Amino acid sequence: MRRLEGPVGGGASHRAPGSGTPGLVTLVGAGPGSADLLTLAAAKALAQASTVLYDHLVSEEVLALLPMRAERIYVGKRAGHHAMPQAEIIQRMLRLARSGRDVVRLKGGDGYVFGRGGEEAAALAEAGVPFRVIPGLTAAQGAAASCGIPLTHREHADALVLVSGHLADPNGRMEWDALARPRQTVVFYMAVATLPQICAELVAHGLDADTPAAIVERATLDDERCLVGTVGTLPTIAAEEHVTQPAIIIVGHVVSLHAVIGEAQACRVAAMA
Amino acid sequence: MRRLEGPVGGGASHRAPGSGTPGLVTLVGAGPGSADLLTLAAAKALAQASTVLYDHLVSEEVLALLPMRAERIYVGKRAGHHAMPQAEIIQRMLRLARSGRDVVRLKGGDGYVFGRGGEEAAALAEAGVPFRVIPGLTAAQGAAASCGIPLTHREHADALVLVSGHLADPNGRMEWDALARPRQTVVFYMAVATLPQICAELVAHGLDADTPAAIVERATLDDERCLVGTVGTLPTIAAEEHVTQPAIIIVGHVVSLHAVIGEAQACRVAAMA
Repeated sequence: MRRLEGPVGGGASHRAPGSGTPGLVTLVGAGPGSADLLTLAAAKALAQASTVLYDHLVSEEVLALLPMRAERIYVGKRAGHHAMPQAEIIQRMLRLARSGRDVVRLKGGDGYVFGRGGEEAAALAEAGVPFRVIPGLTAAQGAAASCGIPLTHREHADALVLVSGHLADPNGRMEWDALARPRQTVVFYMAVATLPQICAELVAHGLDADTPAAIVERATLDDERCLVGTVGTLPTIAAEEHVTQPAIIIVGHVVSLHAVIGEAQACRVAAMA
Repeated sequence: MRRLEGPVGGGASHRAPGSGTPGLVTLVGAGPGSADLLTLAAAKALAQASTVLYDHLVSEEVLALLPMRAERIYVGKRAGHHAMPQAEIIQRMLRLARSGRDVVRLKGGDGYVFGRGGEEAAALAEAGVPFRVIPGLTAAQGAAASCGIPLTHREHADALVLVSGHLADPNGRMEWDALARPRQTVVFYMAVATLPQICAELVAHGLDADTPAAIVERATLDDERCLVGTVGTLPTIAAEEHVTQPAIIIVGHVVSLHAVIGEAQACRVAAMA
């Protein structure tokens, strides 16, 4: 169980039984929102795309980079509706690729950070469909840069923890003891609904209620909002300001730097171009 | 202590006493190595750069994107030498900006993830020098995409922890109990020298020695190497293969997916362009 290099695939295993050569699937991380934060590789993949499967977290300004002729297939959540089941998304992706079409699978953020990119890549591998993976900035990085909240800092945080807020529900398996430690930054994804539970559990497990905390809504987009408070006050602030998804929660003393860096910087990400 | 939006700076505070208007400093995350993984915003900043302060972790292929006329000032470590002290880098950056020059401060990875970007941004803010921050992909993301190791996965890891390997030294303050937990992925940065201690401490704190682990050297570059083993075997593998910095260590069951995804994918990041 050791390898020196990633392989270059190709050849017979990429032929679906009874059909022609399948197309290439490119899993692309669309980043946190601003099209300026796409990678060069992602922008190139989008510019060449002919068939695109995309999620609800992919921003309008990123979709605007697709060629007019590209077929856009939405597989994300609609308000009040359930998302297309993951298995169905995978089947659709495989069907398109096996019909010979090159497919761009576009996900908000980084497909390998709470993006289920691992499940999709494994399904492609098992199906023998050729694929490649382009990473993207994750929301925490976009929010950090745009709001002036460094994710690590020698004086404040030696470690960065990214965790899904879904685990805060009553049947969840959040490791509260580990998350309530000092000297780290914890970023909760998909946590607007569970923000009150998150803050209550952190305090119940020993984190000071005065620990700075922020909620960043629509990070890096024109209408980004960064609301700063403490673990004790953030749930009320977020409720009063009607924060909605997509948003992330940043907990830790690095949030105190927003008042220094975020207030002073010449512009947010959205105003950079 | 709450804010709705990041501000747009400018005006009187940006004038250094007794001199003209200072230049704009742009803190740019250069990403893990491959120039294809720069953001569009970073590539634009590089293309327009006139004065660049850069670190030893910035790759040659990223530096190659700078205009011929740009002045390149190296402030990183040299083999066998100490790095320029952080305070000296900051003073140099402030001096250049105050002389009216626009400065690109280029750092490997993401300046806000173990990059000391927070210290530099705070110094710029306190000095009244205008600045902006462009995030970059961090090494973990580049290595994950290139080697086929998703950082989170519903079956394997609910959380992603990024931590500096420097803390594993005898005077360090690594939170081993938190790091040795199951169902998470832990990525150690700057950890080649401390790899044996890291693996020993993880096992001593209860992590199964058979937990999959990988070391990725020069992630996303042409000569990237991904060595896969377990927490028990990785130190020997890394020593035998003479792994050197820059490299990161990935610990967790997601590493087992390298054999599925990494072996099957059509190409690594470096072969993508």
